[in-house]
Amino acid sequence: MTTRYNSENGAIDDLYGDLAAAQLQPLWEMHGLLTNEPQPRTIPFRWRASEMYKLAARSGELIPIDEGGDRRVLAMSNPGLGGAPYISATLWAAVQYLLPGETAPPHRHTPAALRFILDGDGVSTTVDGDSIPMTRGDLVLTPAWTWHGHHNFGMSSMMWLDILDLPIVEALETIFFQPDRSHPSPWGTVPSVAEQRYGQGPGLLPSGQHATTSKTAHSPLTVYRWGDTDRALHALLDLPRAKVGTVRFTDPTSGGDVMPTLRCEMTRILAGASSEPARQTGAQVFGVLNGSGHAGVEDQTFSLESGDIFVVPSWSTYLLHADTELDVFICSDAPVLQALSLFRQELLEY
Amino acid sequence: MTTRYNSENGAIDDLYGDLAAAQLQPLWEMHGLLTNEPQPRTIPFRWRASEMYKLAARSGELIPIDEGGDRRVLAMSNPGLGGAPYISATLWAAVQYLLPGETAPPHRHTPAALRFILDGDGVSTTVDGDSIPMTRGDLVLTPAWTWHGHHNFGMSSMMWLDILDLPIVEALETIFFQPDRSHPSPWGTVPSVAEQRYGQGPGLLPSGQHATTSKTAHSPLTVYRWGDTDRALHALLDLPRAKVGTVRFTDPTSGGDVMPTLRCEMTRILAGASSEPARQTGAQVFGVLNGSGHAGVEDQTFSLESGDIFVVPSWSTYLLHADTELDVFICSDAPVLQALSLFRQELLEY
Amino acid sequence: MTTRYNSENGAIDDLYGDLAAAQLQPLWEMHGLLTNEPQPRTIPFRWRASEMYKLAARSGELIPIDEGGDRRVLAMSNPGLGGAPYISATLWAAVQYLLPGETAPPHRHTPAALRFILDGDGVSTTVDGDSIPMTRGDLVLTPAWTWHGHHNFGMSSMMWLDILDLPIVEALETIFFQPDRSHPSPWGTVPSVAEQRYGQGPGLLPSGQHATTSKTAHSPLTVYRWGDTDRALHALLDLPRAKVGTVRFTDPTSGGDVMPTLRCEMTRILAGASSEPARQTGAQVFGVLNGSGHAGVEDQTFSLESGDIFVVPSWSTYLLHADTELDVFICSDAPVLQALSLFRQELLEY
Amino acid sequence: MTTRYNSENGAIDDLYGDLAAAQLQPLWEMHGLLTNEPQPRTIPFRWRASEMYKLAARSGELIPIDEGGDRRVLAMSNPGLGGAPYISATLWAAVQYLLPGETAPPHRHTPAALRFILDGDGVSTTVDGDSIPMTRGDLVLTPAWTWHGHHNFGMSSMMWLDILDLPIVEALETIFFQPDRSHPSPWGTVPSVAEQRYGQGPGLLPSGQHATTSKTAHSPLTVYRWGDTDRALHALLDLPRAKVGTVRFTDPTSGGDVMPTLRCEMTRILAGASSEPARQTGAQVFGVLNGSGHAGVEDQTFSLESGDIFVVPSWSTYLLHADTELDVFICSDAPVLQALSLFRQELLEY
Repeated sequence: MTTRYNSENGAIDDLYGDLAAAQLQPLWEMHGLLTNEPQPRTIPFRWRASEMYKLAARSGELIPIDEGGDRRVLAMSNPGLGGAPYISATLWAAVQYLLPGETAPPHRHTPAALRFILDGDGVSTTVDGDSIPMTRGDLVLTPAWTWHGHHNFGMSSMMWLDILDLPIVEALETIFFQPDRSHPSPWGTVPSVAEQRYGQGPGLLPSGQHATTSKTAHSPLTVYRWGDTDRALHALLDLPRAKVGTVRFTDPTSGGDVMPTLRCEMTRILAGASSEPARQTGAQVFGVLNGSGHAGVEDQTFSLESGDIFVVPSWSTYLLHADTELDVFICSDAPVLQALSLFRQELLEY
Repeated sequence: MTTRYNSENGAIDDLYGDLAAAQLQPLWEMHGLLTNEPQPRTIPFRWRASEMYKLAARSGELIPIDEGGDRRVLAMSNPGLGGAPYISATLWAAVQYLLPGETAPPHRHTPAALRFILDGDGVSTTVDGDSIPMTRGDLVLTPAWTWHGHHNFGMSSMMWLDILDLPIVEALETIFFQPDRSHPSPWGTVPSVAEQRYGQGPGLLPSGQHATTSKTAHSPLTVYRWGDTDRALHALLDLPRAKVGTVRFTDPTSGGDVMPTLRCEMTRILAGASSEPARQTGAQVFGVLNGSGHAGVEDQTFSLESGDIFVVPSWSTYLLHADTELDVFICSDAPVLQALSLFRQELLEY
Repeated sequence: MTTRYNSENGAIDDLYGDLAAAQLQPLWEMHGLLTNEPQPRTIPFRWRASEMYKLAARSGELIPIDEGGDRRVLAMSNPGLGGAPYISATLWAAVQYLLPGETAPPHRHTPAALRFILDGDGVSTTVDGDSIPMTRGDLVLTPAWTWHGHHNFGMSSMMWLDILDLPIVEALETIFFQPDRSHPSPWGTVPSVAEQRYGQGPGLLPSGQHATTSKTAHSPLTVYRWGDTDRALHALLDLPRAKVGTVRFTDPTSGGDVMPTLRCEMTRILAGASSEPARQTGAQVFGVLNGSGHAGVEDQTFSLESGDIFVVPSWSTYLLHADTELDVFICSDAPVLQALSLFRQELLEY
Repeated sequence: MTTRYNSENGAIDDLYGDLAAAQLQPLWEMHGLLTNEPQPRTIPFRWRASEMYKLAARSGELIPIDEGGDRRVLAMSNPGLGGAPYISATLWAAVQYLLPGETAPPHRHTPAALRFILDGDGVSTTVDGDSIPMTRGDLVLTPAWTWHGHHNFGMSSMMWLDILDLPIVEALETIFFQPDRSHPSPWGTVPSVAEQRYGQGPGLLPSGQHATTSKTAHSPLTVYRWGDTDRALHALLDLPRAKVGTVRFTDPTSGGDVMPTLRCEMTRILAGASSEPARQTGAQVFGVLNGSGHAGVEDQTFSLESGDIFVVPSWSTYLLHADTELDVFICSDAPVLQALSLFRQELLEY
């Protein structure tokens, strides 16, 4: 970008020079600032599970965990974003990989993060000192400014999906970060207190002495177990004529999204069925947990296998088709857009 | 009450006469209007399960279901309320009794109701046409202005606890009622749709095509199953040093109370332990599900057995003691008081 | 009311006796509990300003201020309420009268109150120590549990309208009261701080060092001046085809009602025009500030003069007609009903 | 930015090549992603009123209004943003200039805008067809997706300040824009309906037939007049020991910010006084309405005259000092940060 515009008229050119010197720019020379519809730089793209696993494993062999930030993370870089390590203009998505016995020590930051487990087990994540073992299909939250670390207790390496709102927090120039120097990390094997208090049943919240005194900006339930999610999807698909079922992961103390910046959902599509084509403002990251099929995004088609990740840009039409029963995790920036009154959504006719 | 006051001064007496004629009353002659603390007319009282069962059974023998309102209901009448059929100045509590094969046909009204099952099974309640079989320990909501009826599919009679906010709605002069003349009642055996959509796991809400479009004033989850409640209580009591665990039943779409007028909780006290003495504004109805012990309310002590019901008046100090592990359902008018900024609560020292 | 029912069948009669002994009442013998529509005990009634002024003045001559509660108050007693000193089942309305130099010393209570000035000036009300001089057309709030007193600085007696939610707080058994023994009362003549901070213009709230740190349950603006109200009504009636204009007094920090239990509005009807017939659940108290006309309430008609007060019961159809331009203050319990999801409103056709 | 990293180890280099080919980037090679505190690209900068007026006037002579978007706008370009036409990473600020008789025809877009009038009068802005004449000190809102245009009815040219959330909406890839082809523009001289309904007094909202049926995401009051603002500041500075007074412009129906993305305030500092040094996350744009003084921002000092504009970057310490009584308009992105739980604020000691 430039602050300097040119014309063929000498007086205007003088004006443009003086404007540039004064750090002013003429609107009438700018083009593409206000487009009729979103023109996202983010492009539709898919990352293959098979490829990511291999590269993560090679990273595990070559790169020690304590190199550069104590995290062994491969960030998905959207080809439309000019080399930025972001899956969309608003979201960071990455695979993280830990060898048996390795520890990614606690730190905290204003970007909010979540972990979705596409495969394996053996790693515990601590959230403000509360230890959460993670297994296939689980969603684990490490909300903004909570201390979080990871430790592989298991016998095998484990890879999982990380999604952060980092590009948004960066665009808003509000990044804060602290490594944990004083905070002890209880890598215990006790059950998660958050789960004990909030994770036992629908609509049941602790009261009395175990009640929380003040509402946090994020869900106090920091893990959503696959067993519950699976049962909820099964119940939705038992409803008459249902071929697609979707659950939203919510803060049980508000019914709202799990964190102020990220919406999380899981959709199940029966074999042979498709979701209806739709579009919405904001980016959506999809992670395939089970099954195979394909995604259509604008004029592209991505075949999908378990573990694959793909991104749908803002206002891009998409649908999912299941060859075998398909379970797909979906994460979007929709809560940001809703808070700012910028969310739009459309179901489209074939 | 009277509009006519008397004095010993002739001029004042004339004034009082003219005030009475003008439908005016002198504040300075009224006493007890503004007391330092609540002076509830509601008194502490306990109803025995054994007695209620016997009387309900005799009613079942003598009174057909279609007599007077199509409900075989025995209302607990607080001795402090001068013969009103209310358990407190604000709450209605009653036992309802259905013989095998009997139907209490649907109607709806502005008072909100709940059913808590202290024993037995076999009856289904329909809520806006959604059929909910009820078993021991379940909480079922029939919120304000929802169509609701009951049918005993089982082989034995069933009695359960009804609680309504009827005295409040009556005091506000806002009673509406409709019998169901046109609304078909599907006494089916299909699973409850509300339960399928909202009752499958903590923090999981239907999204996409099964999402609800607009928020209702009450919980869309109309049944809370004992299995979930029991597991949640168990988890709370697994926390360090816990001897009392309490869960609140909440609207999973808001985290708030299940209905705008009634708060529902279940507390478990380990054998030998007691709750801390406490008091709060508003009335509380307690129903013993499991175990035995006693309740102290102000200067009275009630021994408690499974199925017993008792009421704690506004601002009365109470505690619960468990001889054997005790599970007690609690229903109060606290949401009303909180909405109106009239709720106060105190934990008291021994 | 009675806990004892009778039948002509011996076995049933025995049952009824045993029920009564057990403090249980058979629902099937109760009648009129659930009516199709509200059957308010409150009846439509009007109190004449001329009569109230005369009686207040006689009270001023005969009754010292320190008699019985330090308030010289005449409560309007609805003839339908069996002698209760309430204008409706839910509202207290009264005229209060202070002679020059008299003081009604501060106290506080959980019932919320407002003062509407139908005529005169000279009295200041303090709200938590903030002194508010009151003049004709002003609305002054003394919200629940705020210290409040009155002092007549002026040269003449002053009478004003008090409205409280006392019957509601009493029905909920949550009355608390404290006389002011320690709280100094600055009967100063400084401008009201609440007014300086919140009362200067539409949509303008103090920020920075003068901002309020936490939201109260009621409006921090405790006085609404007639000059502003008059100007707002004038602006509404300048809109095309407007013959009726109504403003709602709101909490400027929320846009909601001024207090959790009372809604306040002022309506102006141009000479010769009428409001549309309407009804709503809950009671409404009307106070005529300016003009003359009449009110139709169900099948009754009340002629109206400046200073008259009348009450419209729950779900009763009413309209206002202006002979000369009519300004009417309206206070209702609608916020209570809305909080509890019991509010209904209908505009009716002629 | 690049997707390609390099190392000095052949195996790692091979890995890096394969990662780049797979659109993956190694986190451990990225630096500066998570900084301890915000490191804004936005830098402190001031634009001089005198300079902007001259350049706007020259643009008026040389550039017709219908050139490039029908707006004669000079965007302040922050020198830290690499040529982007934004005053901060999150805000657009510009001066707009209209000659007598000129019209900037209506259009609408998802970015929200406001107009603050630092000098002059004569231009009307229409907001969804409601015509608002603008004069010195007024704040006018043209919220997201509202139709808005400008027309100069006056005898002289007029320049004003525009602030938009454009960079945020752009970063979120949610720009929508529509020129007005069908929407008639009533360039009338009738008073603004929004102002008549919502702009008459503190806490007074239209009710009954003039009430708004549904809450919009922005304030229904679209103009805040200088007379009201000035009076409110005067009242705050009448409070004991006050040397700085600040009012926030709010949505009178919610008490919240005027629009979901922009906070607006006006601060007055008495001659010789200073604001306390402070910092907050997010950018703030300041426009001097009256008086002179200076601003300290981190280690820089800007002298201030009426009409000057300056920007304070995220988390930068600043204070204002008044040589003569100083009135400064402040616009920030704080509502965005609060909605996303990213807002932090500190008062600092000298």
